[in-house]
Order: sequence, then structure tokens, then C-alpha cells
Amino acid sequence: MTTASPQMSVPLHEMPFVRLELAVMTVIDGTLNVLLAKREQAPYAGFWALPGGVLRIDLDANLEAAAQRVATERLGLTLPYLRQQCAVGAASRDPRAPWALSIIYRALVPLDSFAAEPGKRIEALKWVPVGDTVANGTIAFDHGALIAQAVAAARAEVQALVLPGGFLPEQFTLGELQTSCEALLGRRLDKSSFRRRLDDAGCVVELAGAVRTGAFRPAQLYQLK
Amino acid sequence: MTTASPQMSVPLHEMPFVRLELAVMTVIDGTLNVLLAKREQAPYAGFWALPGGVLRIDLDANLEAAAQRVATERLGLTLPYLRQQCAVGAASRDPRAPWALSIIYRALVPLDSFAAEPGKRIEALKWVPVGDTVANGTIAFDHGALIAQAVAAARAEVQALVLPGGFLPEQFTLGELQTSCEALLGRRLDKSSFRRRLDDAGCVVELAGAVRTGAFRPAQLYQLK
Repeated sequence: MTTASPQMSVPLHEMPFVRLELAVMTVIDGTLNVLLAKREQAPYAGFWALPGGVLRIDLDANLEAAAQRVATERLGLTLPYLRQQCAVGAASRDPRAPWALSIIYRALVPLDSFAAEPGKRIEALKWVPVGDTVANGTIAFDHGALIAQAVAAARAEVQALVLPGGFLPEQFTLGELQTSCEALLGRRLDKSSFRRRLDDAGCVVELAGAVRTGAFRPAQLYQLK
Repeated sequence: MTTASPQMSVPLHEMPFVRLELAVMTVIDGTLNVLLAKREQAPYAGFWALPGGVLRIDLDANLEAAAQRVATERLGLTLPYLRQQCAVGAASRDPRAPWALSIIYRALVPLDSFAAEPGKRIEALKWVPVGDTVANGTIAFDHGALIAQAVAAARAEVQALVLPGGFLPEQFTLGELQTSCEALLGRRLDKSSFRRRLDDAGCVVELAGAVRTGAFRPAQLYQLK
């Protein structure tokens, strides 16, 4: 392997402003919501944005570590099922710099165990139904478009039955799985074709001898493969 | 909307070295190949790497434009079906900078109409079967891992029948489609379940009245939806 030589120093070209943005989603009352942070400072003071922060090459070993540091600083927690969504970069995305690059991470979290607290430079946090973020005049930067992309990616995964970690309980019935998928997709699914596609995909496994009993006949429990 | 004020200038933190890397793939003799460039200069002079280049915030309007500029400079062409793969960033990825961030784009191209020529700082270009890039001691930087990710993503799309543009001719028979998918996936597919999944996915449409005639019985032609 070639090692660094004196000629190979930091490049001469000016580099962009690099940030991490977090698209954290959950299902509330059967509807997909995204977590937004009210900005304390300019630009866009008082507007709502994805929680995020600047990449710190002096602190962050890699992009994933940077995203978790930002989650800790802004939300007071780490996000176990964080997935990289995409990178967006362009001139004029952010008034603080001539060229701004954001790496967006997304996570689906279970509402009942999620306890974020507003951190550094965040006045408040709130859950907003994803449908209400479209053409919403109070969303900062290009974050409306970033939310739409994160929602589309999460939905495409669920549609393809690549079930993301973090949005299902450890054990679930097939009925509960279908209800969760429907909430995430924002539409009803046909039960028999859903079951057939689950069989084809082989993404869930039966828990031997585990059933849920209740008002109805006992239902077999499953877990993600 | 809030506009820039004097306090909001370029941030104080040092930013990473940002590059674009291109994972261009094609099928040759039924095998998926990736295009590699032999490096003329240090670091890794003489090693093989994904063609790539530095982001130029003075030249590039956005990341996609940057990727096409890099394609033009390094390969002498643009890539119509370029898709963003991911961003990778970490300390010690590249001896030229303390912290290096690469945005990787991938494209599947048809071999017969692809005419790349080695451009800036590239000694030669060659197609390498993707299986030969694993544990290959002549691949520069972390590009072996980047190739593996691009291959996995392209295969996951084909597996889910999200058929990427650029790897199929305009019109094809279902047999040809299956052969192309098999070459990309590197394994055989069961014909009847493939046809059933195509029906479910609804990703191809019959071309009314168009059939291919030849040594066998005429076959219906299709196109991507």
C-alpha cells in the first residue's frame, strides 16, 4: 500500500459545508410521522427542520459515528437502526455556505420507547404526520424534499418486504405485521396476497409454540428473520 | 425565508476532502463486470480504482452534475442512468487528506454502445468480473468494498424487480429479460416464479402486435413500464 508523501496534502480546492440530517420516523395512530426540530438560530430561526449538525472531522471517526454524535447532541439519544438515506449537495442549499452537502440518515423508531429531548440549538421537537410536511411553508431549507425522499425509501423497503429493524416489536402476529406495514405505507393491503408475498420473501419466522391469546382465537407469533 | 447575514459565513470547522466515484457495470458473456481505471499518480499509482474525481464547488451546480463532470473528464462520456449509491466517509480512507468523503454513483450500461476512453490521470480502463474484485490485492483505497456495495445494490433492485434503466434493450422477450436478470444476479431463476413475480410487480408491458421471430416460435416483445 502507498503511504502519504509530503506532496499529498489537503487538496487545493475549496470543500463544501458538510452536515448530517436525521429523518426519524414513527407510526402514531396508524399514521407515519417524522420528527422535526424548531430552529433556535438563523438561518430559518423559528422554522422546523430535520434535526442535524455539522460533520466534525476532528471528532467523528466516520459518517455513521458522526450521525450518532449528532443524534446524541440534538436528541439526547442514539438511534440503533439508523440507515443512510442519501447525500444531497448543491450551491445555494444553505445560506451559511456557498455549497452545502448533507448526508441524510433515516430511522424508524417505536414510539413507546422513544424519549428524545431537545438538545443543542433546538427550541422544541415535535412529531408531524408526513402528509403535513408536503408544501408546508414552515419547513426550513430543502428539508421538505428530504423528508419526502426518506418516506419514499422507507415505504419502498416495506413494499418490497425488506422490513427495517426498529419498527416492529420482537414478536408479532401476521395481523399485527400487516397493520404496521399498512400504517407505514399509508394504504390497505390485501391479506391473501400479503401472506403469499411474505411466504415468497421468507423474511419472518414462526416462533415454535408461541401464540398470542386474547378475545379471538389464538394467533401464531413470528419474528423477523 | 431567512437570508444570509454577515454572521453566517463558511463554518469554522475544517471540512473533509470530497470526491465522486463511479461504479459502472455491464454484463459480458453472462457475467457482471465493473469498469476499473489504472491510476497514473500516487497514491496507489499503478493500482486499479473506480474512476472518480474531486468535487469542485466552483464548477459543479450539484452532486449529480459533479458526477457527470467526472464521467466526462475520466471516461469521455456522460452516463444517462446514473444512480446515487451511497456516501462513505472516514478518517484514513485516503492518504491525501485527514478525512475523506466519497459519494458513489452506479450505472448499468449496455456493453455494445459504451465507448469510454481513458481520460485525466487514467492510464487505462478495463472491465473486471465483479467476482474477481473481492480480495484483489491490486484495487486502490477501499474501492473493493465500494464495488461490493454497488453490486449488492444493483442485484437487490433486480431481485425486487425494480429494473434499472440502461441494462436492457428498448424491446425484449421475457426469455431475454430473464437471461439478463440471471447474468446480473449471477444465478439461475425459476421460470414460472419469475413470470409470476413479473405479473405481480407489473414492471413490464406487452408491446401490442410486436413479436420476435426466429428459429423458435415467435415470442412476444415487452418494454419497461
